[in-house]
Amino acid sequence: MAKLLVLHGPNLNLLGVREPDIYGRETLADINSQLAQRAQGAGHELAWYQSNAEHELIGRIHQARDERIAYILINPGAFTHTSVALRDALAAVAIPFTEVHMSNVHAREPFRRHSYLSDLAVGVICGFGSDSYRLALDAAIAKLEPKPAG
Amino acid sequence: MAKLLVLHGPNLNLLGVREPDIYGRETLADINSQLAQRAQGAGHELAWYQSNAEHELIGRIHQARDERIAYILINPGAFTHTSVALRDALAAVAIPFTEVHMSNVHAREPFRRHSYLSDLAVGVICGFGSDSYRLALDAAIAKLEPKPAG
Amino acid sequence: MAKLLVLHGPNLNLLGVREPDIYGRETLADINSQLAQRAQGAGHELAWYQSNAEHELIGRIHQARDERIAYILINPGAFTHTSVALRDALAAVAIPFTEVHMSNVHAREPFRRHSYLSDLAVGVICGFGSDSYRLALDAAIAKLEPKPAG
Amino acid sequence: MAKLLVLHGPNLNLLGVREPDIYGRETLADINSQLAQRAQGAGHELAWYQSNAEHELIGRIHQARDERIAYILINPGAFTHTSVALRDALAAVAIPFTEVHMSNVHAREPFRRHSYLSDLAVGVICGFGSDSYRLALDAAIAKLEPKPAG
Amino acid sequence: MAKLLVLHGPNLNLLGVREPDIYGRETLADINSQLAQRAQGAGHELAWYQSNAEHELIGRIHQARDERIAYILINPGAFTHTSVALRDALAAVAIPFTEVHMSNVHAREPFRRHSYLSDLAVGVICGFGSDSYRLALDAAIAKLEPKPAG
Amino acid sequence: MAKLLVLHGPNLNLLGVREPDIYGRETLADINSQLAQRAQGAGHELAWYQSNAEHELIGRIHQARDERIAYILINPGAFTHTSVALRDALAAVAIPFTEVHMSNVHAREPFRRHSYLSDLAVGVICGFGSDSYRLALDAAIAKLEPKPAG
Amino acid sequence: MAKLLVLHGPNLNLLGVREPDIYGRETLADINSQLAQRAQGAGHELAWYQSNAEHELIGRIHQARDERIAYILINPGAFTHTSVALRDALAAVAIPFTEVHMSNVHAREPFRRHSYLSDLAVGVICGFGSDSYRLALDAAIAKLEPKPAG
Amino acid sequence: MAKLLVLHGPNLNLLGVREPDIYGRETLADINSQLAQRAQGAGHELAWYQSNAEHELIGRIHQARDERIAYILINPGAFTHTSVALRDALAAVAIPFTEVHMSNVHAREPFRRHSYLSDLAVGVICGFGSDSYRLALDAAIAKLEPKPAG
Amino acid sequence: MAKLLVLHGPNLNLLGVREPDIYGRETLADINSQLAQRAQGAGHELAWYQSNAEHELIGRIHQARDERIAYILINPGAFTHTSVALRDALAAVAIPFTEVHMSNVHAREPFRRHSYLSDLAVGVICGFGSDSYRLALDAAIAKLEPKPAG
Amino acid sequence: MAKLLVLHGPNLNLLGVREPDIYGRETLADINSQLAQRAQGAGHELAWYQSNAEHELIGRIHQARDERIAYILINPGAFTHTSVALRDALAAVAIPFTEVHMSNVHAREPFRRHSYLSDLAVGVICGFGSDSYRLALDAAIAKLEPKPAG
Amino acid sequence: MAKLLVLHGPNLNLLGVREPDIYGRETLADINSQLAQRAQGAGHELAWYQSNAEHELIGRIHQARDERIAYILINPGAFTHTSVALRDALAAVAIPFTEVHMSNVHAREPFRRHSYLSDLAVGVICGFGSDSYRLALDAAIAKLEPKPAG
Amino acid sequence: MAKLLVLHGPNLNLLGVREPDIYGRETLADINSQLAQRAQGAGHELAWYQSNAEHELIGRIHQARDERIAYILINPGAFTHTSVALRDALAAVAIPFTEVHMSNVHAREPFRRHSYLSDLAVGVICGFGSDSYRLALDAAIAKLEPKPAG
Repeated sequence: MAKLLVLHGPNLNLLGVREPDIYGRETLADINSQLAQRAQGAGHELAWYQSNAEHELIGRIHQARDERIAYILINPGAFTHTSVALRDALAAVAIPFTEVHMSNVHAREPFRRHSYLSDLAVGVICGFGSDSYRLALDAAIAKLEPKPAG
Repeated sequence: MAKLLVLHGPNLNLLGVREPDIYGRETLADINSQLAQRAQGAGHELAWYQSNAEHELIGRIHQARDERIAYILINPGAFTHTSVALRDALAAVAIPFTEVHMSNVHAREPFRRHSYLSDLAVGVICGFGSDSYRLALDAAIAKLEPKPAG
Repeated sequence: MAKLLVLHGPNLNLLGVREPDIYGRETLADINSQLAQRAQGAGHELAWYQSNAEHELIGRIHQARDERIAYILINPGAFTHTSVALRDALAAVAIPFTEVHMSNVHAREPFRRHSYLSDLAVGVICGFGSDSYRLALDAAIAKLEPKPAG
Repeated sequence: MAKLLVLHGPNLNLLGVREPDIYGRETLADINSQLAQRAQGAGHELAWYQSNAEHELIGRIHQARDERIAYILINPGAFTHTSVALRDALAAVAIPFTEVHMSNVHAREPFRRHSYLSDLAVGVICGFGSDSYRLALDAAIAKLEPKPAG
Repeated sequence: MAKLLVLHGPNLNLLGVREPDIYGRETLADINSQLAQRAQGAGHELAWYQSNAEHELIGRIHQARDERIAYILINPGAFTHTSVALRDALAAVAIPFTEVHMSNVHAREPFRRHSYLSDLAVGVICGFGSDSYRLALDAAIAKLEPKPAG
Repeated sequence: MAKLLVLHGPNLNLLGVREPDIYGRETLADINSQLAQRAQGAGHELAWYQSNAEHELIGRIHQARDERIAYILINPGAFTHTSVALRDALAAVAIPFTEVHMSNVHAREPFRRHSYLSDLAVGVICGFGSDSYRLALDAAIAKLEPKPAG
Repeated sequence: MAKLLVLHGPNLNLLGVREPDIYGRETLADINSQLAQRAQGAGHELAWYQSNAEHELIGRIHQARDERIAYILINPGAFTHTSVALRDALAAVAIPFTEVHMSNVHAREPFRRHSYLSDLAVGVICGFGSDSYRLALDAAIAKLEPKPAG
Repeated sequence: MAKLLVLHGPNLNLLGVREPDIYGRETLADINSQLAQRAQGAGHELAWYQSNAEHELIGRIHQARDERIAYILINPGAFTHTSVALRDALAAVAIPFTEVHMSNVHAREPFRRHSYLSDLAVGVICGFGSDSYRLALDAAIAKLEPKPAG
Repeated sequence: MAKLLVLHGPNLNLLGVREPDIYGRETLADINSQLAQRAQGAGHELAWYQSNAEHELIGRIHQARDERIAYILINPGAFTHTSVALRDALAAVAIPFTEVHMSNVHAREPFRRHSYLSDLAVGVICGFGSDSYRLALDAAIAKLEPKPAG
Repeated sequence: MAKLLVLHGPNLNLLGVREPDIYGRETLADINSQLAQRAQGAGHELAWYQSNAEHELIGRIHQARDERIAYILINPGAFTHTSVALRDALAAVAIPFTEVHMSNVHAREPFRRHSYLSDLAVGVICGFGSDSYRLALDAAIAKLEPKPAG
Repeated sequence: MAKLLVLHGPNLNLLGVREPDIYGRETLADINSQLAQRAQGAGHELAWYQSNAEHELIGRIHQARDERIAYILINPGAFTHTSVALRDALAAVAIPFTEVHMSNVHAREPFRRHSYLSDLAVGVICGFGSDSYRLALDAAIAKLEPKPAG
Repeated sequence: MAKLLVLHGPNLNLLGVREPDIYGRETLADINSQLAQRAQGAGHELAWYQSNAEHELIGRIHQARDERIAYILINPGAFTHTSVALRDALAAVAIPFTEVHMSNVHAREPFRRHSYLSDLAVGVICGFGSDSYRLALDAAIAKLEPKPAG
């Protein structure tokens, strides 16, 4: 059994409200509870955290190290494109993570094509609405499973 | 009658103190009370908020939606050039807003020529010291007035 | 009492006709007479001039110096982005000026984001339709008012 | 029957004289009269205008709207690369137009590869000497013909 | 029941052989049969195709339209960064598709950060080895499911 | 009498099907037969070839030299922007050619503004749907006609 | 006797833990107490502050002005590359400062080569681990010493 | 005996008035009459022309060809950086010319470092105030002198 | 004894025909047979392959691995500048290779200065006509020779 | 006991004379003797060398290797921004070095922000006048001290 | 009476030999003696120096300060584009100087358009062969003449 | 019989010592004597020269012209990327030359991809250690051989 952490960046508290054509109508609470159930079904424990504040996300990442979190799913929202500090926090704790976006960042403003996190991530998933999180969780669970000897 | 919100970004709490050759000697309190009076004179209500913290400004913008704020005047200060999260917050609440700068940003360092907010704004006013706010308020009041049938 | 000059650049003679969704339905004559009245109300005199020709605008700026014009409001239209000669004319006569745009230039083609005038201007106002001119006039009048000793 | 207008930009009055290796030996008068005949043969009327002055071309484009010109052929010459004002004039009158160049602009100086007009044009033809105009006229005539119901 | 198509671009025939540290030891045949089973389990049909030739991939995409393929998963390999023709083929048949990469393209050479397909895709998944395909299939199946009335 | 060759690049086999709002409803067969008739009417012979494969187009260009093709009309489609090999093939056989596009490439994605062929072409025609081919044919026929002594 | 302030930016609370190959094994507490001792030895007083939050660092800088801090040593961490607000705060209080980095920023990712603070700083020291701070303190002390008349 | 032409671009009519720290106190009339005398002293004839209008300068260049002007000295002012049309006019008449600037354009705004004329000129002289013209005239006279057989 | 493979990219089948001023008059057959003889003289075996098709070259590279080819000489022609797929194929088989060009690519169009292969190659030789191949063969043979113990 | 070498690049022989507002009034001899004393005080030996010639500095660096110099302090002056040869020399001898600048290079011309040496250096110190050297020496001495077992 | 110094950069010792189509047939000795005579005629003294070595030119510039040289004419040759050290030397001695080029640098390779010296120079003269020097001398003499009181 | 010259740029005197993993263990003396023998074997004479000083290499190139050197092999080392003066020297003496690098410059720092010499060279060879020289010599000898009449 492993512990996973889902981090949601700025403005994601508005999910279900904000630009529903792009982000869908599910609320963040809906998504978090579904993810927790799914993780539990696979024998893992899943915590979540949302903040509009870069330093609170950084603090949560630092804390993850003490809690022995095994994998992080992070939707950094706007911080994807601007936060070197978040990058440094993830590099410092050295916990494997997946970068998640609900919208297809490549089909939006040009500045959304650059991420300060992607090259440090295990992988990146974008464009599938709240399914982006679920896919990322499945991928993380697969990574956490013991491999058969080969 | 409509509600307006004036937002002041980082370091603007120093107004009247910081680099007075560029920003003038009026304090932020002076400006806010003059704006409130002017709004009241036009039959509107005006609230204000200053923070050095990006997440607090984001939070105030989210709250504006619940308070049915009709128009936002925002002097994003340094966040103009760096904050995608502020852009996302303003886009999410879909309240029309004007970008205000006291100094002429085009006459300062080259990096001040790029704004993450301008293309989403109704308009931009810069260079008139504290008058930039007053002009922005007048423009907002004009926008809020019912147009005669035509 | 001071003299002010309003300059309108190329294609602005079409106002009220050209792309009304962007520029509104007021004609240039409407705008000019409203501005003149407003200036007169503040005890000033206001002249106006429109031309599609760069050299005529330059000539008018040179003449402004002889006429002791105290302030210029200029909507340089397309010349904003291409005319170094207009920049040089304004620098040469050393009359303070405000750059005015009816549309929000930041929300249009990328080449409209660069101006050859902005860094020399007192300030810039864009995006408020014909109100952009009225705001610019108010700002100019405020500048022209004698400041109380302080 | 429709009215067409052919516009020739700066230095094209020298045709037949200027750099004949690039532009051929036909004069502008030769080209204009051939185009007028060809248009007449198709039941249309064709006017022409040359100017070295940007503002005169702009004025002629404005006037075209009042004359109910149905299509414009424009060889903007050097203004192709520098005139936002011409772009704005063509956008304002909303008359469909074809951009014409006698030389192959792609085989000359790098700065000739950028045009301020091409993205607004119906199409672009370059490289065929005075035949560029004739091809552009044929294309315009084809556009003006009533389409069979389909 | 819907039909899905998995496309594999150049050099992916070497899977299980080529740079196993990056791409893993599963062969393409392994991956394809697992994907087909998984699709079948969800009540769908899944075909696959690999080619080192751009024109064969284009031909297969054209054919997909006649076969009423409902969704495409494509790992364009090196063509991601160089093939406008593949982009045009996908745009022409207007079948929704997901871009898949086994490696994390953001952690490799800088030229791998640009894709000619991403902005047309539903979404992009990269970095999870052969799991990238499986996640993409799950996301496609979710898209193909009828949504409950809401 | 001369021989002409019309080359159509990738995805043009879909003509009449693919994005008809941009490319019209005529099929490639329609266009080819009309061009052949038009060429025959002028006393020339016209062959055509379409391929989604760069190497097949290169091969056809090489063969054109042996067949003493006098002029090539080429719509390189997506290869316009990516194929140095096609450029080299056209340079190697030294047959004059015209670059043809049905859509106005300047009004689409920015990467479509660069062509690897234009500077080697006699001229370029874009934006007139299938008329682009017909105009290019007329221009080629004019080039092939003996000039009167002058 | 003068007061000095040492500011540490985001993630520096992890010192001694985070990537020790780059940053060494001393904790922040170790460094701070050594610096305080060294300052005291030179007859000065030294305070310190660490925060992962940009606005807290800004607040601390504002407060420094009221406390008559004579010199600031700042290791802005990731904010070096992204925070215009920090730059503005330092410019506003007009306290001389030195920019300090423990690692050699020039030998890391390319984006670490740009600093929003360096051109306003007295000087920059990087690459000497915790000695970077000690050197910066020595330099500050030297600046604060009264110069002999010359 | 040869004829020379001196051309002065926009705003140079203000000479002696405009920014005298940069351009000196001599008027344009002073400069022209001194140049004419100097030319006459060398047995040549010198005409001059100033205009703020690009098309008038172009017209004057066209006329120079009919007048058999042997050499042109041109201070293109702001048109240096923006006028392809002036470049084309000078190329068309094929009269050798020198580009002259009174100020040192390299020590001013960065956009003044690019000239559309320099690569076509015989040479360029800048930075010597009105002496720039005199030096250019001397160089032209030297060019016009018959060379001894060698 | 080792096996070597010489690969020739697009348009090189025209050698001896195409632009002989640049590429010389030897045919590809001449070059291949000379190289084979030279290899044989050194006790090695040499195969060759030319194709205008990227996928055929990729296929030949894949096959080289099964044939235990010890060294590849590749003149990628136009693919040098455009083919990531060829790069990936060479990386995948991990056979050492030399990049060969007959012409001096640095003295031609600017886009020929970028190669997708050079940084993976052992070395690069260009500019010596068909001697480029012979030099590359000699270098390869030298590499294949057993080094004396040292 | 270790040997240290201080290298001074071009124009630094003018120290005390050249632009004293930027560089201070101490001569190079003053600085060198102070550094030597300070090194001696710490039990080390310090040599120095100044040259305006790149090759002499390179020669001195080569020689340092034979002399078993343990650490180099180098103020490369203008060569910082232009000399790859100096970079290669320092890389070749593999002696650890610190890059020193008396002025704050970040506050001067933009081209001074790029250094060919920084990424190879242990660290960089700039902006403290002659104290930059002294700080660099202290840092070097600290590096040279034996670390206590830990 | 004043002292002038003429400096010639690398390869200028070949004058009269090297690429005479560009540089003419006069030798450097010819030019120097003519310049000396011309200076003497104006009551001044003129020294000259040529070197292919950057450090020797720097040394000569340093020495000029001790010799109370009043003005420098420098043809920096290739060092124009590469030598920051020469720029620093000229800035350090603070002697006014003119940058001279015999060829028109704007009509040659693009990298010759950038100069490290121009913005510090009084002015720049290029394109007139050896007359460039003579013109520069005349300009210097004019600068050195006492101005009448005004 | 012809004379050849081999030039070695800065730091190449360290060969056999400096970074042997990249450059091999042969000394420069070894290489030079092998090249001389090889040239002699082909009936030619070969001289060599190494310098860390740009001006000495320039001087040696100038001298080569007087000595009637028929071909130059030059390994410019770091000067490849920075020396316009070396380029000018080689252009001035108009002796054909080959650019040689022992390491594969394309696989090192990005700034090593640009050469100021390549476009003037006959050809370029890099990546083969000391064999790069030997291959370059063979190519030069081939160039110097009389061609059979053809």
